[in-house]
Amino acid sequence: MTGVSRRGFLVGATGVGIGAGAVALAGCSSTEESLKHSGGTASNTGHTAELVDAIVAFDGPHQAGIATSAQAHLNMVGFNLKSGVAKQDLANLLRLWTADARALCTAETPLGSLEPEMSVSPANLTVTCGLGRPIFERIGVAPPNWLRDIKAFEHDKLDPAWGQSDLVLQICSDDPVVASHCLRHMVRSGSDYAEVKWLQQGFSHAHGNYQPGETARNLFGQVDGTINPRTDEEFDAQVWIDEGPQWGQGGSAMVVRRVRMNLDTWEELDRASREHSVGRKLSNGAPLTGEEEHDVADFSATDKYGLPVIDKNSHMARATAPADHPEQKILRRPYNYELPPDPRTPDQLSNAGQIFVCYQKDPSLQFEPIQQRLDEADLLNEWLTHEGSAVYFCPPGTHAGSGEGDSWWAQSLLEQAGL
Amino acid sequence: MTGVSRRGFLVGATGVGIGAGAVALAGCSSTEESLKHSGGTASNTGHTAELVDAIVAFDGPHQAGIATSAQAHLNMVGFNLKSGVAKQDLANLLRLWTADARALCTAETPLGSLEPEMSVSPANLTVTCGLGRPIFERIGVAPPNWLRDIKAFEHDKLDPAWGQSDLVLQICSDDPVVASHCLRHMVRSGSDYAEVKWLQQGFSHAHGNYQPGETARNLFGQVDGTINPRTDEEFDAQVWIDEGPQWGQGGSAMVVRRVRMNLDTWEELDRASREHSVGRKLSNGAPLTGEEEHDVADFSATDKYGLPVIDKNSHMARATAPADHPEQKILRRPYNYELPPDPRTPDQLSNAGQIFVCYQKDPSLQFEPIQQRLDEADLLNEWLTHEGSAVYFCPPGTHAGSGEGDSWWAQSLLEQAGL
Repeated sequence: MTGVSRRGFLVGATGVGIGAGAVALAGCSSTEESLKHSGGTASNTGHTAELVDAIVAFDGPHQAGIATSAQAHLNMVGFNLKSGVAKQDLANLLRLWTADARALCTAETPLGSLEPEMSVSPANLTVTCGLGRPIFERIGVAPPNWLRDIKAFEHDKLDPAWGQSDLVLQICSDDPVVASHCLRHMVRSGSDYAEVKWLQQGFSHAHGNYQPGETARNLFGQVDGTINPRTDEEFDAQVWIDEGPQWGQGGSAMVVRRVRMNLDTWEELDRASREHSVGRKLSNGAPLTGEEEHDVADFSATDKYGLPVIDKNSHMARATAPADHPEQKILRRPYNYELPPDPRTPDQLSNAGQIFVCYQKDPSLQFEPIQQRLDEADLLNEWLTHEGSAVYFCPPGTHAGSGEGDSWWAQSLLEQAGL
Repeated sequence: MTGVSRRGFLVGATGVGIGAGAVALAGCSSTEESLKHSGGTASNTGHTAELVDAIVAFDGPHQAGIATSAQAHLNMVGFNLKSGVAKQDLANLLRLWTADARALCTAETPLGSLEPEMSVSPANLTVTCGLGRPIFERIGVAPPNWLRDIKAFEHDKLDPAWGQSDLVLQICSDDPVVASHCLRHMVRSGSDYAEVKWLQQGFSHAHGNYQPGETARNLFGQVDGTINPRTDEEFDAQVWIDEGPQWGQGGSAMVVRRVRMNLDTWEELDRASREHSVGRKLSNGAPLTGEEEHDVADFSATDKYGLPVIDKNSHMARATAPADHPEQKILRRPYNYELPPDPRTPDQLSNAGQIFVCYQKDPSLQFEPIQQRLDEADLLNEWLTHEGSAVYFCPPGTHAGSGEGDSWWAQSLLEQAGL
């Protein structure tokens, strides 16, 4: 499949249904210039205040979209390589995708795009690439030990339709039109090599509708993500891979779980029951033993009846890293989903949940033991069902403009494989 | 079904899966007070700059959500009355829904809601109610003549799944979490009387990612909605009903069409072909004979070959009201949709389109003749398929705090029917 022009589908005039006056447009660089914003840059961990000029740096030691504060919209899209795609094509695909993502995220027009107007204002767009275990098998490089299916849990009801794919792109933006355009561009530009296995669309609070640094609420109304890493030191300790082969260092491990939330029965609970299940106050996310969101939970505190204030099976208690396993922490980066009621469930009022996305160094030491404890006894299990699961290696960040040209996703891994 | 407590589903403690410590919470008014924003108000036609305090007035001579600039997110939800629901129940439903919508839109907690945190920041939330023809049949009042199925057009491929419903709520907000919470609340609070027939979810540009007054682009990249009414006089002339029974005056007619857009083939076109099909420049929406978006089109202009600059079958030319029918104008309020590729169409790259929503006095004199001209010869028909159609009467606006208490949607119509 090498040799296929990536511009073929973009520039070729077709004339379908077009009368006189249709002429091919050779280029649109002048249009690009007139449309491009000056584009202030934002750090990888925050957003600029003015959405219309908000750009998250694409290149850096780590991929954007991990430490980046969660934007309002997610298009998480799993791809499988098409049959007949050769090893060398994988390098072509990743080179092409990286260049396109870099352009879209920095308010440039991707090479060959005829829609410069759709990429002038990325609204904190990030595109984060992950490789599944099948890619390592294809290129003949030993994968990290953790790059395998997450262990099976008793409460799982996994649907293969939401399962492991060869590749994943996590597309996030504060503007849903930008997220949609980026999705379509990336699907199309990779379509010689890869096809969509699944698309998981999610949302969080709008840019400007929460305070900077405020933890978002999920559809249960919970403040969700309080114990996330925030400092560089915490990210270094929990998220960024710093051992093993050079091609992995600076990368991270992404776990994607699709979790149905039964809002119909959840909403039958009074507030005290909801707070009891979670272990935190609904008002501000404070532990039931504290006043402020980030107060340290006191698991030994008891009420006037001598019962624990924070139930040992509350979600928070089960999720908290035990004292002898401080490494059991992860970066949660979840999104809500809400779909039309499922016609196969006539009495269903809502069809909603969470696209649970987390990042860490090693899911076998971080996500799995946490989820094992939750699966065993979390009170929230009554309302949660894990329906999808996939794991990806996210290669380290890229650089642009050096003497050797721009680098691309997983370049050092693929060069190791002789590609 | 009268006598069913609307609080039943919200306040009743169930104890499902809850251990010691669960107690019923009698109320949460103090929580409400501490959470409520001061809430500046925005006019019906614009947004405030600060999303966190952005409230669109709920009450007024017309319902909000019509003249309101389109927010970023749409949950358009069609309901059918449940079997066994009596005429009187309809008044109960509309009274209840109006009160809940008024609360949610003005940063109050709806009566009986246990989620005050989810309604503190409406982000320009509007809820607009429409009644389908079946409601008039149910209450025994003659409907407006236009309140019937839109005439069948040759290119229509209507799916009854997206067809007429008894009632509709158009829920719009600049925050997707708010739009989701409002949807769920309204579905649940009406669930004794009405069930969801369909849910159409759409999006437009994010608040803050376009200039005030800027016309949004659709997924074809077109500036879409240039000739919308903007002044009070234009709204009076095109949108607000000012004839017929008193209960209808100040209301409007809503048409909802679900229009698939074939992006896979559209994207094969070069820019000149796209502009030729639309009759406008992609860069800024100007007519092909003009320079600025709002320049008047010159349909008589010819190019150096003597051919019309604006093709007579371009979308703009077909949509423009003829000189002898100046009443053929509508308020377009469309939203984009993008769904995962349809598994029944294996080679499909995108599954997208537009939830076309328009408002007018009388669709038989406004939408229908426009759509008739488009159906006959619009060049865009190559890439568009109308898959859903429904029509609703939107009653006039409501008032709050008068001596007789708050009014509710369609109150004068239902009082006319003796309810």
